[in-house]
Amino acid sequence: VTASEIVHTARFRVRYAETDQMGVVYHANYLVWCEIGRTELIRSLGPSYASLERDGILLAVSDASLRFHAPARYDDQIAVETRVESVRSRSLTFAYLISREEGESRQRLVSATTTLVALDPSSRPRSLPAAVLALFGNPSPAHHA
Amino acid sequence: VTASEIVHTARFRVRYAETDQMGVVYHANYLVWCEIGRTELIRSLGPSYASLERDGILLAVSDASLRFHAPARYDDQIAVETRVESVRSRSLTFAYLISREEGESRQRLVSATTTLVALDPSSRPRSLPAAVLALFGNPSPAHHA
Amino acid sequence: VTASEIVHTARFRVRYAETDQMGVVYHANYLVWCEIGRTELIRSLGPSYASLERDGILLAVSDASLRFHAPARYDDQIAVETRVESVRSRSLTFAYLISREEGESRQRLVSATTTLVALDPSSRPRSLPAAVLALFGNPSPAHHA
Amino acid sequence: VTASEIVHTARFRVRYAETDQMGVVYHANYLVWCEIGRTELIRSLGPSYASLERDGILLAVSDASLRFHAPARYDDQIAVETRVESVRSRSLTFAYLISREEGESRQRLVSATTTLVALDPSSRPRSLPAAVLALFGNPSPAHHA
Repeated sequence: VTASEIVHTARFRVRYAETDQMGVVYHANYLVWCEIGRTELIRSLGPSYASLERDGILLAVSDASLRFHAPARYDDQIAVETRVESVRSRSLTFAYLISREEGESRQRLVSATTTLVALDPSSRPRSLPAAVLALFGNPSPAHHA
Repeated sequence: VTASEIVHTARFRVRYAETDQMGVVYHANYLVWCEIGRTELIRSLGPSYASLERDGILLAVSDASLRFHAPARYDDQIAVETRVESVRSRSLTFAYLISREEGESRQRLVSATTTLVALDPSSRPRSLPAAVLALFGNPSPAHHA
Repeated sequence: VTASEIVHTARFRVRYAETDQMGVVYHANYLVWCEIGRTELIRSLGPSYASLERDGILLAVSDASLRFHAPARYDDQIAVETRVESVRSRSLTFAYLISREEGESRQRLVSATTTLVALDPSSRPRSLPAAVLALFGNPSPAHHA
Repeated sequence: VTASEIVHTARFRVRYAETDQMGVVYHANYLVWCEIGRTELIRSLGPSYASLERDGILLAVSDASLRFHAPARYDDQIAVETRVESVRSRSLTFAYLISREEGESRQRLVSATTTLVALDPSSRPRSLPAAVLALFGNPSPAHHA
């Protein structure tokens, strides 16, 4: 597989705590939902992100960008489609499409990307092990560093 | 001094992120404000809570109770009055009165208490050192355990 | 049915955003989980809480108490068992048991109760309609007011 | 004045609730801090954002981008320097520089921009009134639309 084929959809409902007085989801929460999306994508590939951390591989967000198309509302059924956009020896970029689902229809709410850099438990940059890179569809990281 | 005389007031404004679609502050946030209140109370006594943690003294909430009298709203000026309610060898209880301030007037919003138990960095219960107990107005913890 | 028989279990995983630097779930988040528990309990009875709000019935938390037995951790599988504890003409009390599930085993993490009062869209106290009270197992609210 | 000269610095300490198990501030919280920065910038110009909302002018985030240079930690003293980057008839763009302050020194943590679009209370796009545009240093919005 190549990175571009790796995609996973996470689903959940909007919590009351996530709304604000404009009657919609407070914008910072979409970054939390992106985190759920990539956590579930990683789990779908094999290891959990929790197990990566226990193995000394921390992924810290270094860049994020979000475009807000339409607001989510309380109790909406949300789908976060997460895609591996690029794989480098020390970082991963994910793209997200957050939608509301109602029956068969799906409305686009937010599109986003985040880049995560690999850190060791002392917060120093580190390379991703070959086994981890392979999970994300990159068998030869040296060529992409 | 005795515990009951130790009191400190922290002040800040309500953040937009803290509101919900009812147009008021989401109730869980008052526990965050209690944390700000006791952090600032501890700082006023000498050490910061951050420095206590670096010294291996973690305080974890074991009990909390809150009574909600009136809602806080976005941009309100909030005062959290925190009081040391009781000091034991392994735990501390704080009482909070959260109010809205407008000029000279003050409206009571929430009253709360939390009990915190002392843990070591491995999350095992531990005793509070005499120096810490003394800060909270208790020079002879053995008599109060 | 009577109130005490109404119980519902909601399940989800701990989000990274919910942890704090002690390596466990920040305590205020358990109130958010209680909200998820009662939302799903209400949905299981028929109407969603979102639809109650659209009908002009807002439920605001007036009292909360929590006892923290053991901490939840990132990625834990959580179960929130919510029970209707009492039904009055203008308020409802829910009890919660929050646990970690691992295979067949279940560890108790937090027990809590919250009381919610009924408000109209102008935030004035109101009575719960008979149809709503009946949902919660109370066909004759006048006797319990 | 022109937009580029309008700048304001907000200051506060990191809350425990804002940290995560990596021991640093959870990344979504920086968007909350940006909101504090622009709220305080608007207040420094005259009206509060709360009063703008009461006048029927809602500002909703349509785009956000963040670059994370170094992590904030619990109890750090934070400065959010907010700058008006561009003013259009229906939207405003703000740039933020989030730093840690220690005595005289300041370490850059996060740089960000957000664009906000003006909505009416029914969530329809609207133009910003001339009086509001003038606040942000743009006396002739028609030329910049």
